[in-house]
Amino acid sequence: MMSSTNPVKIAVAQIEVIAGHPDINAKKILREIEIAKNAGDDIIVFPEMSIPGYLLGDEWENTAFVNDCYAFNDEIKNATDNIVAIWGNVDVDDSMKNEDGRIRKYNAAFIAQNKSYLGAGRVHKTLMPKYREFDDERHFYSARKEAQDRYLSIEDVFDPFEVTIKATSHKLGLILCEDMWSDDYTINPINILLKKDAGLIVNLSCSPWTWRKNNKRHSVVRNRIENQPVYFIYANNIGIQNNGKNIFLFDGNSTIYNPDGSLQKVAKDYTEETIRAPIFAEKIEIMLNPEVSDERDKEELYKGIVYGIKKFFDIFPNRRVVLGLSGGIDSALSAVLLAEALGSENVYAINMPSQFNSETTKNAAKILAQNLGIHYTTIPIQASYENTIIDLESAIFTRLDGSNTTTKLKLSGINKENIQARDRGSRLLAGVASILDAVFVNNGNKTETAFGYATLYGDVNGALAPIADLYKMEVYELAAFINSKKNVIPDTIFNIPASAELSADQNIDEGKGDPIYYPYHDKLVRAFVEFRLDPEDLLQYYTEGILAQIIKCDEKIIENYFKDAASFIADLEHKWKLYKLNYFKRIQSPPIIAVSKRAFGFDLRESQNGVYFTQRYLKLKHKLMNGEN
Amino acid sequence: MMSSTNPVKIAVAQIEVIAGHPDINAKKILREIEIAKNAGDDIIVFPEMSIPGYLLGDEWENTAFVNDCYAFNDEIKNATDNIVAIWGNVDVDDSMKNEDGRIRKYNAAFIAQNKSYLGAGRVHKTLMPKYREFDDERHFYSARKEAQDRYLSIEDVFDPFEVTIKATSHKLGLILCEDMWSDDYTINPINILLKKDAGLIVNLSCSPWTWRKNNKRHSVVRNRIENQPVYFIYANNIGIQNNGKNIFLFDGNSTIYNPDGSLQKVAKDYTEETIRAPIFAEKIEIMLNPEVSDERDKEELYKGIVYGIKKFFDIFPNRRVVLGLSGGIDSALSAVLLAEALGSENVYAINMPSQFNSETTKNAAKILAQNLGIHYTTIPIQASYENTIIDLESAIFTRLDGSNTTTKLKLSGINKENIQARDRGSRLLAGVASILDAVFVNNGNKTETAFGYATLYGDVNGALAPIADLYKMEVYELAAFINSKKNVIPDTIFNIPASAELSADQNIDEGKGDPIYYPYHDKLVRAFVEFRLDPEDLLQYYTEGILAQIIKCDEKIIENYFKDAASFIADLEHKWKLYKLNYFKRIQSPPIIAVSKRAFGFDLRESQNGVYFTQRYLKLKHKLMNGEN
Repeated sequence: MMSSTNPVKIAVAQIEVIAGHPDINAKKILREIEIAKNAGDDIIVFPEMSIPGYLLGDEWENTAFVNDCYAFNDEIKNATDNIVAIWGNVDVDDSMKNEDGRIRKYNAAFIAQNKSYLGAGRVHKTLMPKYREFDDERHFYSARKEAQDRYLSIEDVFDPFEVTIKATSHKLGLILCEDMWSDDYTINPINILLKKDAGLIVNLSCSPWTWRKNNKRHSVVRNRIENQPVYFIYANNIGIQNNGKNIFLFDGNSTIYNPDGSLQKVAKDYTEETIRAPIFAEKIEIMLNPEVSDERDKEELYKGIVYGIKKFFDIFPNRRVVLGLSGGIDSALSAVLLAEALGSENVYAINMPSQFNSETTKNAAKILAQNLGIHYTTIPIQASYENTIIDLESAIFTRLDGSNTTTKLKLSGINKENIQARDRGSRLLAGVASILDAVFVNNGNKTETAFGYATLYGDVNGALAPIADLYKMEVYELAAFINSKKNVIPDTIFNIPASAELSADQNIDEGKGDPIYYPYHDKLVRAFVEFRLDPEDLLQYYTEGILAQIIKCDEKIIENYFKDAASFIADLEHKWKLYKLNYFKRIQSPPIIAVSKRAFGFDLRESQNGVYFTQRYLKLKHKLMNGEN
Repeated sequence: MMSSTNPVKIAVAQIEVIAGHPDINAKKILREIEIAKNAGDDIIVFPEMSIPGYLLGDEWENTAFVNDCYAFNDEIKNATDNIVAIWGNVDVDDSMKNEDGRIRKYNAAFIAQNKSYLGAGRVHKTLMPKYREFDDERHFYSARKEAQDRYLSIEDVFDPFEVTIKATSHKLGLILCEDMWSDDYTINPINILLKKDAGLIVNLSCSPWTWRKNNKRHSVVRNRIENQPVYFIYANNIGIQNNGKNIFLFDGNSTIYNPDGSLQKVAKDYTEETIRAPIFAEKIEIMLNPEVSDERDKEELYKGIVYGIKKFFDIFPNRRVVLGLSGGIDSALSAVLLAEALGSENVYAINMPSQFNSETTKNAAKILAQNLGIHYTTIPIQASYENTIIDLESAIFTRLDGSNTTTKLKLSGINKENIQARDRGSRLLAGVASILDAVFVNNGNKTETAFGYATLYGDVNGALAPIADLYKMEVYELAAFINSKKNVIPDTIFNIPASAELSADQNIDEGKGDPIYYPYHDKLVRAFVEFRLDPEDLLQYYTEGILAQIIKCDEKIIENYFKDAASFIADLEHKWKLYKLNYFKRIQSPPIIAVSKRAFGFDLRESQNGVYFTQRYLKLKHKLMNGEN
């Protein structure tokens, strides 16, 4: 274990990074450096891309913007009298080309001390994530390509910095985010630094929160550095960043790790905070690993979504929000989250009944609004719905080709259901929101988003989908968790069947509801979307009797739901088709707050390519249907 | 010049590739191989990714699907008795990991002869495009990384195949698409093959059409191979492929180049066709380079969009389409293109007037419908519009926090305009389309898409935006081109001002219209979107007096429009803000047919990050406003 009579005081500034606003971010960094100097810190560390932000889409192609970000480096360097500062920013080399023909850019960590850059002054990111929302390869040249261009290996060029603090020299390794998540790569940057005797490794990250991610990280760090004489710093930002179709939550949780992988200091989640600790000290302090129970899990989810909503509204001139409140569970959860995030004084809920809405749900909606103390009104849609039917039924198309053949419109039941949904979403909610200068939200959940069980220009509408990355059963669970703290959602809403109430076939008082069996179909959607499983895989697992185990569904649920292989197959094909074909609705749906391992949006990139079943699927099916298994 | 007494008969099969349907594509490939064998061809070449298709989004993560595609390789190999076949498909190595932790995949060209793979049997793509719609690095491991993992350079591992045809051995180099577009890369695959004496280079491509791209390619090939003894084959597919937010057109134009870069054979655009030519022959045939005039340009554009529409409808059960026909230029162009692509018997146009629509436009719409012989009807929205105003004005929100404070809704002019647009888009067009089991289209152009000059859930709606990659003036130009062939669009539509006709302020009979000066703002949008210029750049060019030249706008147009720097700056900032802030509408807008160098959609990736002006912009502005320049 390296120790020293001159411990180094390190500060990790967990700032909120505002993507696309380098001026604000740089100002904050300069302020934190001043505070650190006054506090006598030796090193201050900021997150990855802490000047420009990380999720900027193709704004990385805007050279003026990139140069603007880059220019802040010297301002920061010039503030480093008596301190070492390490920060993330874009590095630019306009003598070289990026592979898109523009100027070359790098995702870089900069380091300066006493108003000078240390050594080369920067390190370029080596491992470039390019899955989910990550697009590093799209915009940045990697250290790996630089080495290859010089006919060198990355080991040849990747060295720790020599930093002298209080007359003691330290080997400080700098890496960026994915560089520590090297399991799937042929290059391991941490190992290279360890072989080169780094005593301190600093990882600048811009790492979105996903449910239960922090524990994973602690164990990865432990495995990487255990029994090596090295301190490890994880600097992450807070805030939200987006790619248009998804909002990602950045929880911070910046951590100072001891050489044994134990936690010395952890910053609070979703809080701007600078954590400080002595490293290379005689005595190592250990903070206990925060225990994660199932309850804390729900708390984490609740906190994340509320934070996401709150921050999303920062871009609007006010915090007013409009939502439809049907008396069902989805809009109930949505309302509670909005009231918590924005204040009940900012929430305007509208109940919009037609002839098909029960007194039960209408009452439940109003009671919930009372419990939350939000603004509430009822605007019936029956008259407008009937007028639309009349307008459409009386329309006559004439073919103006001389034949004058006419076409009349005949409305089906589903046509009529959709008219109600669009009347609510486009005529009323969009109308009220624009008058109040507010935004309105989409209350959909992930399961119905997968199957397209929602009407485009109806309940698909909204400027934000706060709960569209939660499966239906998770919606119930989160709602129950909220009620366990403070009972706001009426029991009725939990007890009635999930129903769109758009026709007599969906009468909740008669126990009728959605044509989806959520306890199973939630898991099926997760298998498609998060586990990336094909019908072929699922049919194979079903045949082997291990489906329940693979998709993490109660065995009995599957057994009771399907009486035989034929009914399993019919449902599997039907749901796969719904999932694939209803992508056309997701193309036009609002941004979703991402909380799972894969959210609909640009987290999961889809093409409108119809439905396909593999050759092996067809063979498996044939065998099963012919009783050959 | 290499020549031979045994000329080789090469066939290039320009097939339509259906993305995501390997069964259909493989069947077509096998059929073409049979035909080629009967025709006595020695080599047959298919495009890149001709089994799976190319734009599949994250379906590349579906291992069952990928293995299904891969399995077709052996079927094709087994059909190569007495012929060499070269085709594009995904290569899979399940002993290795991709950098996303899944099985490793490559974008590969396969080669087989006499039922055996030749040599390694495949080549992996070296240069991975990752700009615009391209995402090769996201899904595939590159030959370049493979070389680096073995501590080798790409030159060490990249060799031509030795192919024996009619007892003569040939060195055949295989590359994939971007491998020939190496200007911006540090690796040049064609040069490597030329150094290794390749006599034939085959490039398998899946190369989307963009306006004027083919001439560019001819000159690139000429520059690469000129004066080298090498034949060059460019095999491209036809069809459309999409990333959800964009439809890309594949025009084919597969080409057999002579060693001097001249064209020996070129396949017709948007046509399934196999071109054949002898290579290594004594005498070289030369086809004249098809001349490109401005008129052919327009023809190319027209043909492309019509093809895109036609193919897009292949995924639907029928070809019926609904559109709003206002009597303005955008919907007029849209209607003509739809009638051409789908047949006038499939087009249902609706004129939906409110009190603000003039007799002029209503008449023009009907005349156009007559000229096209399409189905037509009028559904006035005035009553519904008025009812919505009453519904909204009579709604009273009550704050249910015990205070019972009430909020009433006061409608502004813009609120009322939006109500009309939503009534048309969501109540009527969506209603009629669902009843007819049809889709309806969005008639927006690129300029209004940029500035958000359209109503979400109103005219932003639709399942397809066929002309949203055309600037407003291009809409007029394409419409005029169509009229020059056959006069279908009434002159009135060209002569009235462009107007939304949503209020008395937009009365076209009084010469009032949109708050956009298209001859200049079209060019401004192109500068933002395609040239990727920042307000800083534009202000700099304005200051230097070279703005007109840079953005390719008539000098006088700019001079006349802005009386001084202050008015230029005010407009620039206003339009930059509109462009950035109205991204929220594009998030929810339909797929756009891409025809330019950068279309809105997933071609241009955006984030909802608000508006930023660089430090240098602010300084320039300050100087200008204070007369320091």
